[in-house]
Amino acid sequence: MKVLVLKPNTSSEMTASIDRVARQYARPGTEITSWNPDRGPLSIEGAFDRQIAVESSLEKVLKAKERFDSYIIACFGDPGLQAFREALDVNILGIAESAMLTACMLGHKFSVLSVLARSRPSAESLVRHYGLQDRCASVRATGLSVLEVHSNQKKLITRLTQEGKKAVEEDGAEVLLLGCAGMAGVDKIIQSALNVPVLDGVVCAVKLAESLYDYGLKTSKVGFFKTPEKKNYLGLWPGVRLPWGQ
Amino acid sequence: MKVLVLKPNTSSEMTASIDRVARQYARPGTEITSWNPDRGPLSIEGAFDRQIAVESSLEKVLKAKERFDSYIIACFGDPGLQAFREALDVNILGIAESAMLTACMLGHKFSVLSVLARSRPSAESLVRHYGLQDRCASVRATGLSVLEVHSNQKKLITRLTQEGKKAVEEDGAEVLLLGCAGMAGVDKIIQSALNVPVLDGVVCAVKLAESLYDYGLKTSKVGFFKTPEKKNYLGLWPGVRLPWGQ
Amino acid sequence: MKVLVLKPNTSSEMTASIDRVARQYARPGTEITSWNPDRGPLSIEGAFDRQIAVESSLEKVLKAKERFDSYIIACFGDPGLQAFREALDVNILGIAESAMLTACMLGHKFSVLSVLARSRPSAESLVRHYGLQDRCASVRATGLSVLEVHSNQKKLITRLTQEGKKAVEEDGAEVLLLGCAGMAGVDKIIQSALNVPVLDGVVCAVKLAESLYDYGLKTSKVGFFKTPEKKNYLGLWPGVRLPWGQ
Amino acid sequence: MKVLVLKPNTSSEMTASIDRVARQYARPGTEITSWNPDRGPLSIEGAFDRQIAVESSLEKVLKAKERFDSYIIACFGDPGLQAFREALDVNILGIAESAMLTACMLGHKFSVLSVLARSRPSAESLVRHYGLQDRCASVRATGLSVLEVHSNQKKLITRLTQEGKKAVEEDGAEVLLLGCAGMAGVDKIIQSALNVPVLDGVVCAVKLAESLYDYGLKTSKVGFFKTPEKKNYLGLWPGVRLPWGQ
Amino acid sequence: MKVLVLKPNTSSEMTASIDRVARQYARPGTEITSWNPDRGPLSIEGAFDRQIAVESSLEKVLKAKERFDSYIIACFGDPGLQAFREALDVNILGIAESAMLTACMLGHKFSVLSVLARSRPSAESLVRHYGLQDRCASVRATGLSVLEVHSNQKKLITRLTQEGKKAVEEDGAEVLLLGCAGMAGVDKIIQSALNVPVLDGVVCAVKLAESLYDYGLKTSKVGFFKTPEKKNYLGLWPGVRLPWGQ
Amino acid sequence: MKVLVLKPNTSSEMTASIDRVARQYARPGTEITSWNPDRGPLSIEGAFDRQIAVESSLEKVLKAKERFDSYIIACFGDPGLQAFREALDVNILGIAESAMLTACMLGHKFSVLSVLARSRPSAESLVRHYGLQDRCASVRATGLSVLEVHSNQKKLITRLTQEGKKAVEEDGAEVLLLGCAGMAGVDKIIQSALNVPVLDGVVCAVKLAESLYDYGLKTSKVGFFKTPEKKNYLGLWPGVRLPWGQ
Repeated sequence: MKVLVLKPNTSSEMTASIDRVARQYARPGTEITSWNPDRGPLSIEGAFDRQIAVESSLEKVLKAKERFDSYIIACFGDPGLQAFREALDVNILGIAESAMLTACMLGHKFSVLSVLARSRPSAESLVRHYGLQDRCASVRATGLSVLEVHSNQKKLITRLTQEGKKAVEEDGAEVLLLGCAGMAGVDKIIQSALNVPVLDGVVCAVKLAESLYDYGLKTSKVGFFKTPEKKNYLGLWPGVRLPWGQ
Repeated sequence: MKVLVLKPNTSSEMTASIDRVARQYARPGTEITSWNPDRGPLSIEGAFDRQIAVESSLEKVLKAKERFDSYIIACFGDPGLQAFREALDVNILGIAESAMLTACMLGHKFSVLSVLARSRPSAESLVRHYGLQDRCASVRATGLSVLEVHSNQKKLITRLTQEGKKAVEEDGAEVLLLGCAGMAGVDKIIQSALNVPVLDGVVCAVKLAESLYDYGLKTSKVGFFKTPEKKNYLGLWPGVRLPWGQ
Repeated sequence: MKVLVLKPNTSSEMTASIDRVARQYARPGTEITSWNPDRGPLSIEGAFDRQIAVESSLEKVLKAKERFDSYIIACFGDPGLQAFREALDVNILGIAESAMLTACMLGHKFSVLSVLARSRPSAESLVRHYGLQDRCASVRATGLSVLEVHSNQKKLITRLTQEGKKAVEEDGAEVLLLGCAGMAGVDKIIQSALNVPVLDGVVCAVKLAESLYDYGLKTSKVGFFKTPEKKNYLGLWPGVRLPWGQ
Repeated sequence: MKVLVLKPNTSSEMTASIDRVARQYARPGTEITSWNPDRGPLSIEGAFDRQIAVESSLEKVLKAKERFDSYIIACFGDPGLQAFREALDVNILGIAESAMLTACMLGHKFSVLSVLARSRPSAESLVRHYGLQDRCASVRATGLSVLEVHSNQKKLITRLTQEGKKAVEEDGAEVLLLGCAGMAGVDKIIQSALNVPVLDGVVCAVKLAESLYDYGLKTSKVGFFKTPEKKNYLGLWPGVRLPWGQ
Repeated sequence: MKVLVLKPNTSSEMTASIDRVARQYARPGTEITSWNPDRGPLSIEGAFDRQIAVESSLEKVLKAKERFDSYIIACFGDPGLQAFREALDVNILGIAESAMLTACMLGHKFSVLSVLARSRPSAESLVRHYGLQDRCASVRATGLSVLEVHSNQKKLITRLTQEGKKAVEEDGAEVLLLGCAGMAGVDKIIQSALNVPVLDGVVCAVKLAESLYDYGLKTSKVGFFKTPEKKNYLGLWPGVRLPWGQ
Repeated sequence: MKVLVLKPNTSSEMTASIDRVARQYARPGTEITSWNPDRGPLSIEGAFDRQIAVESSLEKVLKAKERFDSYIIACFGDPGLQAFREALDVNILGIAESAMLTACMLGHKFSVLSVLARSRPSAESLVRHYGLQDRCASVRATGLSVLEVHSNQKKLITRLTQEGKKAVEEDGAEVLLLGCAGMAGVDKIIQSALNVPVLDGVVCAVKLAESLYDYGLKTSKVGFFKTPEKKNYLGLWPGVRLPWGQ
């Protein structure tokens, strides 16, 4: 099967490291491609960033000739998940949703280890959007920006271990989620240190995409993710034909 | 005070009719300006439409020289509300949020009278995002598209009256919300027919904007709506300087 | 429009200070009258106090010849709100409800800064009654009685600043609510100190009353706030004719 | 033990019939006294009625020389429960709360069979106040007024059987609650007809009062039900000394 | 009436001490019998223990010739409550459920004082199963095993007092629940020390069983607790005839 | 990897049909073994059945010499899930949980199509146990017993199609779950008829087990699923050594 890992910020280095992780856990027969959009923020740390990133991500995907069996939105905020699921006929996975659902099979409560403090309320809101508030022990911020997360792995490991320990001991977390796609590659290090499952949403999404594919499942099109209505879009991306017509 | 009514679809006719309603209820001293973005969907009926509309709305607002005391997002889905609140230092009101909060002062339960059936799950999700699920009796769809809503007022009134009656009698609604900015101008007609308060979110937002302004209140900047971090945005709108620097 | 600020305790000094605040923020054309009942507790700090205060407040209002366009119950517990909304045909606003709904437009989570510790569970219960539990970060007590709140403003400011800071930093509050009508006049001082919106419910209620009035809205009479049934009341207040007949 | 059944409306006939039911199920050694206040509404069908009834009920109880081991508020709305629990040192039981808690031991979901349609939102709000929303299948109205309930038992039985059947078959109720103290005496008739437990809150409260008494339990005084603060009450009931001083 | 106290672990010493407490509070005419199963764990501290204990408890009860008017499952986890309610036609009470419902009459929030830390998530899940999450302030662990709880009463009292104090002062508990049947006999000691009601679920269950019996109530058989379907059970307990046939 | 499909009832025919489905969707390299316990009910339709089935299932698994990489409990009620997760060090998947989590990736709301009406409240309670109540549109019963489900596939398909249609059209379901392991083999038939994803939990569990295995994840052992304490079990299964010692 062909999987597109779509990382919505424009940092190509981060795309490369996410691509490595995705390939590492993909099974034989799963072909990973990783893209980022050509326009937009270098990192995604709020709703403004997400809006800009989603629009250019949609353009990137819809302009491309190539179609994939599954698309993974590789930003822990799952920006644009509903729009992509409306726009495409296959499966779209968000790495936050994938990590949360995977966590639900491993323990009764999970905690999210996030980046800047500002991402806490948004992450809590996302948990609630998925209806998983009763399974979430806490969202804890490491205080690191997305770019710091990516550039200083030693500091990242220290901070994740500190906050993860508090999540387990004070908040009752049984599973920990890496709350940023840029945290790629440290899951097993934290897992060894704290002795609880630690999940990288990119890996979770790759594995779940394979599961859905094997079972022949696709996004339901009767409700929340119905294909967009045909209509006129003024000045939309030149050269893009919307799959559902216009 | 200066209020911008920003209607995120590109239909200028609909902008004009919303502008009329906003001016009708604005008090003396409130100066209404109504814009729509230059690019994007002619109507907004799903998450894909919302993503496209928000990006061009942000550009329109940030590119403009003129600044306002308050911004109203005039689409019943409040698209981009979090992004606008991050990006600007003043008050941003969504018409769905404004209508829901106003309803909470008039009755214990409200119902939303929406457009196509596809908007039900999204509207329910929005209610939950605002934490108002215990105050919402139901979301009912009229089955009309946004453009039908705008072009066939007679049919609109018939369908709103039918579904509103069911909302009151079967679902326990005490207040009804017009679930689309394009329904401008029919609130008092339905209110007379059904004898319960009927709210047009555009009017609610104008009145609430005046309230916040008088009391000297602005969006809180310490949590959910913190100003974006400074960072590099590749290929962002030419000629736009982000208010918080880059 | 004519607004009655009804402060349900019997302290006329506190009524005067609330009246000052209400007038300060009322717009031209809004005529403020402030009353307190002739019988009842000097301060309201629990359910027993509330029961006594509401009965004498209802008498005061129903015995009066004068009718108002809007009534504001100026005690942060909104005592008697449902009874007043049943009994009168216009709008009734509670200052707790008004502050909470206003807060919802300014941030994702608010905290209430209350008086004695005993008021915490009641305030939390009120938040739940309004269905706003997902928007409330915390209720924190200053430990001051209502009369201390009113008589020692310096101490009040110190305690509000201390607890408000904790609400923001530890509980995730983005907006703070003054949890007692007697706290009139300190909102902007705390707001400057803590750099988050601080709301006095009396002001919020005055502004929201104006909003509802402008839009021609009144309490819905089909459900929770239906006009009382006609019936016999033994020994009810002499000289009072119930508006809905007897 | 001495139990006061306090029925907060002023209908002495209804008091007599409730007294009969209470005595029927009281065990030997439980001495039942039944009172109603001397002032107030002949029936209680809304928040206005409740406010008037509670004030005169408090006077009646606090003016009396006689003290009881337990007080039962015999109106399915539990008016004044918090105030009475603050004011007295013993146990206070509401018949709605007692019926709901008893139901929780007999089935997973209960329904309330209420009087007029207007009582539905209040009853639902009461269920939520007790935090029992997940155990309540529905509140259904018989459409009868409190006085009809009391005067026309045949009609009452017919309507309770009809709505009770729907509650079981359509809403998933496993236990039914008589939603008005005036429904005294029909519980076992409906139970035989529908083959599910049917609860009269007055009986439930008598039995629970005995349980608490035997175990030596009294209302907790550290939080929600703390004894009122000492303070000045202008013009309070002549001849009444508040138990906690003034 | 005849009450069976069924303590599902196999420690006969603990059965004896629970029996003493049950008899102490039973009223004249209530005949207490206390059993434990012949097979199974000496203490119950998790889901594995519960599964083993319930199967042997069901055998013990169904094999017995003697039938009782009420059965009490004397383990704070209420293991097998649903199965017993399906299997028998009378009332079955769990001590956790009984304690929680009793607490709801005494204060607005209760806390559970539990044994090992591992029991916290299970106890929280049980609270949620009963839909009482809004009434539960916290579950706190004493860190003692069930057998320690039973053998070292001095340590037990110290730890319960410490955690109970924190529950009241930090978590807002108004009532405390002894979270293990093995804590029999210390309720009034902790109650005196902390000045809030402290509940032993065994006593609560005995008193509630008497209440239900007096009112002639039995488990509802139309939903959650419907009698099992007749069917073939391979190799079920020799000599046992299932009451509903096979 | 080696997967044990453990079907907790004793019907070997049903085990065979489940085994077929599991093998059909297992990828190469996944070795499926399917067992049922030697004692217990021929079908599982309530809590009594579940208790008996889990005890014999635990014996079967713990007595066996063979160990597996993953265990699937193939009954839509996930009986014994917590006990098995405590007892074993690897992954345990319940088919209800697996189906629900898979559904969450495909639509915003799912419905469960169950067997007898009696299973509705238990299934709803299970949904709540997993904290997924906000994602569940409804539980609908086909009215068929487990054995009918297995023996009359034509009737099964008719009833599933009827109830599934109502779930989609009336309840807002976007994904349908087969609510019984005995419904094996009809998923794609109903999916074609109704044009929404239809999930067999057995397949979901096999695919998710592979996902967890690939990512090297195992049940978290720090909270809800901690390994049982060492203790004495009177008369436990002869010849079984508990993996964690005794």
